[in-house]
Amino acid sequence: MIIMKTNATSEQVAKIVEEVRRYGLRADVSKGRYRTIIGLVGDEHKIPFDNLSVLPGVKEAAMVEVPYKLISKEYSRFAEEGTEHTIVKVKDIEIGGDKPVFIAGPCAVESHQQLLRIAQDASEAGAHILRGGVFKPRSSVHSFQGLGALGEKEARDALAWLREAGERFNLATVTEVRGESQVELAAEYADILQIGSRNMYNQDLLAKAARTGKPILFKRHFGASIEEFLSFAEYIAAEGNKDIILCERGVLPTGKGKNYIRYTLDLAAVPVLQKETYLPVIVDPSHAAGRRDLIFNMSCAAIAVGASGLMIEMHYNPTEAIVDAKQAVTPDELKQIIYTCKEIDKLIKSASYGKD
Amino acid sequence: MIIMKTNATSEQVAKIVEEVRRYGLRADVSKGRYRTIIGLVGDEHKIPFDNLSVLPGVKEAAMVEVPYKLISKEYSRFAEEGTEHTIVKVKDIEIGGDKPVFIAGPCAVESHQQLLRIAQDASEAGAHILRGGVFKPRSSVHSFQGLGALGEKEARDALAWLREAGERFNLATVTEVRGESQVELAAEYADILQIGSRNMYNQDLLAKAARTGKPILFKRHFGASIEEFLSFAEYIAAEGNKDIILCERGVLPTGKGKNYIRYTLDLAAVPVLQKETYLPVIVDPSHAAGRRDLIFNMSCAAIAVGASGLMIEMHYNPTEAIVDAKQAVTPDELKQIIYTCKEIDKLIKSASYGKD
Amino acid sequence: MIIMKTNATSEQVAKIVEEVRRYGLRADVSKGRYRTIIGLVGDEHKIPFDNLSVLPGVKEAAMVEVPYKLISKEYSRFAEEGTEHTIVKVKDIEIGGDKPVFIAGPCAVESHQQLLRIAQDASEAGAHILRGGVFKPRSSVHSFQGLGALGEKEARDALAWLREAGERFNLATVTEVRGESQVELAAEYADILQIGSRNMYNQDLLAKAARTGKPILFKRHFGASIEEFLSFAEYIAAEGNKDIILCERGVLPTGKGKNYIRYTLDLAAVPVLQKETYLPVIVDPSHAAGRRDLIFNMSCAAIAVGASGLMIEMHYNPTEAIVDAKQAVTPDELKQIIYTCKEIDKLIKSASYGKD
Amino acid sequence: MIIMKTNATSEQVAKIVEEVRRYGLRADVSKGRYRTIIGLVGDEHKIPFDNLSVLPGVKEAAMVEVPYKLISKEYSRFAEEGTEHTIVKVKDIEIGGDKPVFIAGPCAVESHQQLLRIAQDASEAGAHILRGGVFKPRSSVHSFQGLGALGEKEARDALAWLREAGERFNLATVTEVRGESQVELAAEYADILQIGSRNMYNQDLLAKAARTGKPILFKRHFGASIEEFLSFAEYIAAEGNKDIILCERGVLPTGKGKNYIRYTLDLAAVPVLQKETYLPVIVDPSHAAGRRDLIFNMSCAAIAVGASGLMIEMHYNPTEAIVDAKQAVTPDELKQIIYTCKEIDKLIKSASYGKD
Repeated sequence: MIIMKTNATSEQVAKIVEEVRRYGLRADVSKGRYRTIIGLVGDEHKIPFDNLSVLPGVKEAAMVEVPYKLISKEYSRFAEEGTEHTIVKVKDIEIGGDKPVFIAGPCAVESHQQLLRIAQDASEAGAHILRGGVFKPRSSVHSFQGLGALGEKEARDALAWLREAGERFNLATVTEVRGESQVELAAEYADILQIGSRNMYNQDLLAKAARTGKPILFKRHFGASIEEFLSFAEYIAAEGNKDIILCERGVLPTGKGKNYIRYTLDLAAVPVLQKETYLPVIVDPSHAAGRRDLIFNMSCAAIAVGASGLMIEMHYNPTEAIVDAKQAVTPDELKQIIYTCKEIDKLIKSASYGKD
Repeated sequence: MIIMKTNATSEQVAKIVEEVRRYGLRADVSKGRYRTIIGLVGDEHKIPFDNLSVLPGVKEAAMVEVPYKLISKEYSRFAEEGTEHTIVKVKDIEIGGDKPVFIAGPCAVESHQQLLRIAQDASEAGAHILRGGVFKPRSSVHSFQGLGALGEKEARDALAWLREAGERFNLATVTEVRGESQVELAAEYADILQIGSRNMYNQDLLAKAARTGKPILFKRHFGASIEEFLSFAEYIAAEGNKDIILCERGVLPTGKGKNYIRYTLDLAAVPVLQKETYLPVIVDPSHAAGRRDLIFNMSCAAIAVGASGLMIEMHYNPTEAIVDAKQAVTPDELKQIIYTCKEIDKLIKSASYGKD
Repeated sequence: MIIMKTNATSEQVAKIVEEVRRYGLRADVSKGRYRTIIGLVGDEHKIPFDNLSVLPGVKEAAMVEVPYKLISKEYSRFAEEGTEHTIVKVKDIEIGGDKPVFIAGPCAVESHQQLLRIAQDASEAGAHILRGGVFKPRSSVHSFQGLGALGEKEARDALAWLREAGERFNLATVTEVRGESQVELAAEYADILQIGSRNMYNQDLLAKAARTGKPILFKRHFGASIEEFLSFAEYIAAEGNKDIILCERGVLPTGKGKNYIRYTLDLAAVPVLQKETYLPVIVDPSHAAGRRDLIFNMSCAAIAVGASGLMIEMHYNPTEAIVDAKQAVTPDELKQIIYTCKEIDKLIKSASYGKD
Repeated sequence: MIIMKTNATSEQVAKIVEEVRRYGLRADVSKGRYRTIIGLVGDEHKIPFDNLSVLPGVKEAAMVEVPYKLISKEYSRFAEEGTEHTIVKVKDIEIGGDKPVFIAGPCAVESHQQLLRIAQDASEAGAHILRGGVFKPRSSVHSFQGLGALGEKEARDALAWLREAGERFNLATVTEVRGESQVELAAEYADILQIGSRNMYNQDLLAKAARTGKPILFKRHFGASIEEFLSFAEYIAAEGNKDIILCERGVLPTGKGKNYIRYTLDLAAVPVLQKETYLPVIVDPSHAAGRRDLIFNMSCAAIAVGASGLMIEMHYNPTEAIVDAKQAVTPDELKQIIYTCKEIDKLIKSASYGKD
């Protein structure tokens, strides 16, 4: 990491970037209010930091050992005096800001009518962002893979409905990209691109999605540690895209026999991530629980632990949903979840302790 | 399970118990307000339910297939019309009642002075129960094993300090029993016996502790599923002791690399357990986190998810604690945790939804 | 699954395929020596099996409930009377045949000279297939990502060296494809395409690689069950490509503290997979162990448990390897591993028991 | 650890032991052929090593940082020049010697007739040690807990049958102790005491069993790392009992969905343990697999990876076994397993490589 002097010129910055490239690395230039930081993408051992530190405009040049540097809190602190957390802005919504953000919608986009109705319900319940899957990752090739699997026309139709529903009910939109060939298409229509749990390790998909410049909602793999999760988020940041929303959605349950849930929601991951990185962290209780009767409790807990938002599956008639029918809540339930979560959020934020 | 008629006589009940024993099983007689239920301990396949169901006083006789019957919600519902959850009473404290219960204290009892001071701090912070380990389970034989390891005299001294501290500051007391030989000794002094995570599978210890009649604070093993946890809690109930407080304290973390915590606190376990059993469920955030700066957040989350109480390590000077110094909070922090948790609890309980 | 009569005509088969498509599913036609089987790709609940079973040429039509049908042993048995295991042929090498197959080579292709020298060493040691990574999946964006990351020219060069080395030393070649954009390029040069552990869930990559028609070496994810592993192998088969070589390479280790290895090699997976599917199963001990001094023991165990081959990292000078230096064996060590493994294989195959 | 000079007198050793006790630690005196080593049980930070190192007879005094010292290879090497592995001797059987040792028998002792017949079968098949459970750890209180659960008389009868069967067919015997109260009883009858997987963390049971002086067959918990396993084996050694036989029996499987086995047998644990400690390591494939059709393959793999022996459940009529009927092999199968394993063992031992 190279920290430039407060009065460093853009020529001096450009010179450093050039030097960095000469050693086979890429440079991530982060212009803060107070100074510019140049993060290095690649193996820093190749860089002669001593030589660089004496170049004009350079305040300090030193190696950062953690596998995630560009998204680490240290990096942010240097660039922007006092910055602890960044805000990802989508339309007029601030993820990571003062108030929790609620993402709701169906697991899969099923039809124009279904989506519009759910969008209206979500909006009325107080949600800010509409979710809807067009390309569904599934454990079995024999299961419904989303309307996107039927062809480009069907994919465009479904994505257009999502955009339409968002516009009509003043909701931002998010949809999952599962393969590289879907990235550009989805980016034409949706406000946020989601990388699902199973694709957390898919570095080529991460890089491609990052390059669209769209905010990325990035889910932790169910078998990944926090360190791995952040190391792969770094693949997004390394493309110059820092609009990353981290999402905890549950890890593999432990033990022999039944746990009565699908995944173990690791809520401690929220404050842990908030201490390691400046990125906003949200929680998806729906996929973790896999059952509707736990969503209220787990939503409350996620906000109480400090999450910046929730992603909840909702359907006006959960039992008729094609995918994951068992875990969707009703519009009325969503409304009550949002109401109670906002109250908890206010309570937590007014506490004098635990603010780190 | 054999459900007696409302007007069944105690002779009729005794006759059934005798029959059950004839087949090599034990009988757990549960007298509810409305009727008596006879639970069977052992292999129910040996029982001719058809024959039993026609005996005088019997309303219904049927096999229960789950490995935990005596602590299942069904069992409770039959015995006590409308009973969803039971309350474990210790002195004037109700665990599983209207308000959350807070257990606090040092990881290990270190000295008379240390314990009295911490008890006073805990009491002033609003805690109800004082914890303090005399027999410490440790991963290394070379680590401090608690004052109890020094001999019976030292064990009795430490236990007496615990009792004294509890009495002086109006706190109930809980201490861990690690081996069978410590059970009777600890039961002489403490109000509640704790079975630690590593001993969850120790069925001989469970049975021996259960037979003291003392309430048992029973911690889930870090590698155990919910089904296993309840199946072993059944070992306590099978001795006729239903004063069981279940405690979630974290499961094995997932993935390669760092998770920055010791165990993954499985907060969904709280509502899941509350749906499977009538027993109260509490959470220990201290051992899961293993770091002090997460205790506030995780305590709030635990209460928000519906826990009936918390068990928190506290020390007036955490850095000088002999065991687990990194995870203890200060008295002042405890006070703020208790304050905020009580507020969250009220908020959650006033919500119209999520009440199961 | 639809089983045709022995004397069914190709028109009758075509008619069934057409019917299947009418219901929105795809048909996998498998012509065995004795009869033709039509596997269904998609949700079988949409198919009226009763109607289909009375069409001309149909012997039997029934739903198969497992998520992996096309690669299940049952499917194979129907198509090919007596077939227990299939053989994947590459050049004159039979994977899944009478003798174990050995794949060896460097973790990453580093230079022309390096690869040729290792190929010669591998060949002389008795290996059949040369491995070499051009596109390296890495946990950190800051680590060396393979020569393929430098640009298409560098990727083509490295792949051409692999092909040249294979041809010169009479070895088949295998290389990993990490992203969709690399599939066609790699298929131009390599005999076998590898899907790495981290991409096991990447269904779009699986489908794209499958469609090249090349044999696919498919590695189990370190957090995946056997059922998931096979369900994702089914994505390859669903594209009509049954030349799949399954590879066990270790799962997440358990417990707190050190395990002194990187992943837990699940050797029971070998016979389990051999009982569930007809596909050949090999083992990669190098990535599981992550340390050279265990490779001999684990290779012997893998062959003893019944594996059809091994994939071993080898380097003439392990300590100078850019990637995974600690786990590569020397050419001499490889030779001794291959020698002892062949002896164990003969011994196991001559045993009268354990043949399933 | 304190290494005495070759010519140190026993008075000098006694003086050191006294010093060690003065600081609150226990001393483990290990008299090797060449010199005496004094291991320290307890917190070594309390010991002034500089002061000790100048006492008469002391060659070297230094702290050992690993949680397992007394069973570490380093400790052994100092005591006994050239010692890599120790042998546990039971009757004329050498566990950890030149040839693999086979332990076989029923999961649970069911009757006099059953045990004698199985002992004869085991003996004829080539087994060296007879296993038979009298006190059975079970996940459900409602399952058969072994004859020992019926009372002391029944326990003594079952243990006497075990001893009788061993004597009559020239087999050593091993039985599990599940609770502290069973230790002395079992030690009266059996040659080896087994600590089961679920009791690995039960330090009071370990200490009590160790103090009988009997060899301890110590099984790894299914949720324990190698480091934890050895740290708890140290509890046995700390009582002065180094006759410990380590046993790998499978860890928790990974992933969602089916693995078609009960536990994942971690065979790499065998060479890893052999590098960390001098104790012999055996494998129990029966409990890991939980199914009979995998026992042959996994037994072969266990011997191929270097295990010093196997523990296999056998029954003349597996389907009528009361406990774990699905995993027992027949006498004829056992015979073939032993035959093939011995051949593999010879082959492995004759290899010039992989000897560590």
